[in-house]
Amino acid sequence: MVGWPDARWLELSRTEQPIIQAPMAGAGGVELCVAAIQGGALGSLPCGMLAPDEVRAQVKEVRGLVNEPFNLNFFCHSMPKDADEGAWRRLLQPYYDEFGVGPSSGGAMRLPFDHAMADVVDEVRPAVVSFHFGLPEMTLLERVKATEAIIIGNATTVEEARWLADRGVDAIVAQGHEAGGHAGRFLAPNSGESLGLFALVPQIVDAVRIPVIAAGGIADGRGVAAALTLGSSAVQMGTAYLHTPEARISAVHRRRLREGRTVVTNLMTGGFARGIPGRLIEDLGPVREETPHYPLASAALAPIRAAAEKQGEYGFGPMWAGQAAPLGHTLPAAELTRKVASDALAILRRRS
Amino acid sequence: MVGWPDARWLELSRTEQPIIQAPMAGAGGVELCVAAIQGGALGSLPCGMLAPDEVRAQVKEVRGLVNEPFNLNFFCHSMPKDADEGAWRRLLQPYYDEFGVGPSSGGAMRLPFDHAMADVVDEVRPAVVSFHFGLPEMTLLERVKATEAIIIGNATTVEEARWLADRGVDAIVAQGHEAGGHAGRFLAPNSGESLGLFALVPQIVDAVRIPVIAAGGIADGRGVAAALTLGSSAVQMGTAYLHTPEARISAVHRRRLREGRTVVTNLMTGGFARGIPGRLIEDLGPVREETPHYPLASAALAPIRAAAEKQGEYGFGPMWAGQAAPLGHTLPAAELTRKVASDALAILRRRS
Repeated sequence: MVGWPDARWLELSRTEQPIIQAPMAGAGGVELCVAAIQGGALGSLPCGMLAPDEVRAQVKEVRGLVNEPFNLNFFCHSMPKDADEGAWRRLLQPYYDEFGVGPSSGGAMRLPFDHAMADVVDEVRPAVVSFHFGLPEMTLLERVKATEAIIIGNATTVEEARWLADRGVDAIVAQGHEAGGHAGRFLAPNSGESLGLFALVPQIVDAVRIPVIAAGGIADGRGVAAALTLGSSAVQMGTAYLHTPEARISAVHRRRLREGRTVVTNLMTGGFARGIPGRLIEDLGPVREETPHYPLASAALAPIRAAAEKQGEYGFGPMWAGQAAPLGHTLPAAELTRKVASDALAILRRRS
Repeated sequence: MVGWPDARWLELSRTEQPIIQAPMAGAGGVELCVAAIQGGALGSLPCGMLAPDEVRAQVKEVRGLVNEPFNLNFFCHSMPKDADEGAWRRLLQPYYDEFGVGPSSGGAMRLPFDHAMADVVDEVRPAVVSFHFGLPEMTLLERVKATEAIIIGNATTVEEARWLADRGVDAIVAQGHEAGGHAGRFLAPNSGESLGLFALVPQIVDAVRIPVIAAGGIADGRGVAAALTLGSSAVQMGTAYLHTPEARISAVHRRRLREGRTVVTNLMTGGFARGIPGRLIEDLGPVREETPHYPLASAALAPIRAAAEKQGEYGFGPMWAGQAAPLGHTLPAAELTRKVASDALAILRRRS
C-alpha cells in the first residue's frame, strides 16, 4: 500500500493495488477474475448475463483458487414492458435471409438484479457488489447491505454520483466518455452528452465524500497515475484486460483493439455502448431508432450473430472497447496488473 | 521551472508555467492575454475574427504592457465555395419575424489565415503562432516558419497529430472531447467520435517526438498535474479563463458556466463546437442539417443575435464552454494562472 496517494479504497476493499478489473459481461469470467486478483487487483465476476446457479458455481471456482476479496457485478435496468421488435426485425430481414435463419431464438439476455440473485449474494457473501445502470429497488439494496458487502455504484454525471451517495453506496465508479461497453447512465439516459474523464472525476470527487474509482480510457501506468492525481482513489480497467489471454473474446476482436477506432452504438442491445465497428454497424450506422429498448435488441440479433460467427464474421456481435484500447499491453492478466501498478507507482514516486 | 516534470515546452516557449491561455475568438483579447502572461502563462491573441490591422494594433497594445512571448492564433479552414443559406434562413424565419430583422447583415466572420495575415506575422514576429483546423497551405506555412516563430498545431486524433508532426510543427495541442468551442478536427471532420483527453494524450505522446499540450477539461491544479502525469509537456486552458474579469463574455454566459451542462452544436457557425445551450439550441436541437458549412452559419444568425442581445437574450450567440467549466476559480487571470500552477506543483511535489 506504501506509495499510493489515497489508501481509503485499499483499506476498504483490502486489495493491494488501486485497480479493479472491470466485470465485462461476455468477456470476463472466472479465469480473468482470478488472474487479476493474483496480480493484486480486485477481480470481478460479471453476473448480469448469468443465472443464479451459474453465479454460485463461478464463485465456488474462484474460491477454490484464491482467498482474496472479489466483486460480483449486476445490472439494474428496468426491463421494458412492451417489446415492439417489428421495426427492428424488418431492418434485420436481409441478414435473416443472408444467413438462412429466423428471428426466433434468444441468446443470453441481460437481466436486472432480483431476489433470486439477492439470495445468491446472501449465501456467498462477496466482499464487494457493484451495480451498473443505477441501483436495485430499496428492498433488494437493503438485502445486499445486510450482507455487509461493500457496494459500488456507477456514475456518468455529478447528479448520478450524488444520487448514489445519497442511497448509501460505499464507493462510486466515475465512468467517462472514453469507456468501452455500456454507458451506465441511468438519470436522463437519453440526454446525450457524455463527460470526459478529465472533467468528470474531479467534479465527482468534489461532490461526494466516498472514494471515487475512475473508469474509461485508462490502460497503462500513466493513466492510473493521472487518475489518482485527479483525486480518484482507484481505477477500474476493462479494455486493458481484453488484451490478456484470460479474456474470452474472438481473435478478430482482440486484433482490432489495436486499431483505435470505436463508436457508440445502440445496435447490439438497444442501449448505448462503445465498441469497435463491425459489419452491422458499418451497414446500418451505429445508432438506429428501430432498435427496441435496452436490452431487447440482442434477442432478434442472436440467430444472425450465431450463424455469422460460424462463418468467421464477428460484426454482428459486440466488440466492446474503450478509447485507450491501443495503449494496452499484451500480457497475462496477473502480470498486466502488476506492471500497470508498478509503472504508476514509478511515475508517482518520480515526483519530489 | 523547477519542479515541472518536463521542461521541453518551457524552454522552447520561454514561459514560466506550462500553461497556455487558449485564444478563444470572441472572448479573449489584449487584456486577457496580458494578464495571463503576467501570471506566467503563454498568453494568446485570437486573430481568426480580426482584420490584419486589428492584429497589428492588438500586438502593439500587448507589447506596450509586457515584454514576454505571446501567441497569435489563426484558423485554417477552407471557405466553402457555395453558400446555400436557403434552408438555414427558412429555419430561422420565425426569429427574423420575432425580432423584426432581416437576413441581410453580416457580423464578424471567421476567416482563414492568408497572405495578408502572413504579412502581419512577418512584421510583428510573434514568438508563437498556433493554428486551428489544420495548417495553412505550404507557401503560407513556409512564410511563418521563416519568421522563426514556434508553430503549434491542434490535433483531435492520433492521425492528425502525425500529420502535423510530418509538416514540421514544433508542438501539438491534443484537444479532447471535453474542450469548449470548436473541435479542431480537420482530417475526416464529420467522422463523429471524439476522443476523451485520457485516451488522446498518451496515444499522441507515443506517436510524436515533439511536446504535446493537453487541452479540454482542465480547469484547476489537479487537471494540470494529471495532464502532465499523462505525458503532456504543458496544458492549454480556455474555459478556466472565462471566469476571469478579463474575459469578454456576457454576464449570462459567465453565470451559466457554473451549471455544468454543455452540448456539441453546429448552429452557431456550421462547425461542431461545445457550448452552453441557450434558446436557439433548446428550440431547434443542437445539431441541424440545414446549417451551411462552417463558418457560414453565423452570418444569417447575426442580425437575430444582435437584436436578441439588445433585449438581454443571449441564446442566439455562442456561449462556448468546456466540460470542466464548474471547476473554474473566479479570480483575475494573472492570479488564476499563478494559483493553478502552484496547486499543480503542490500536487506533483506531494508524491515521494
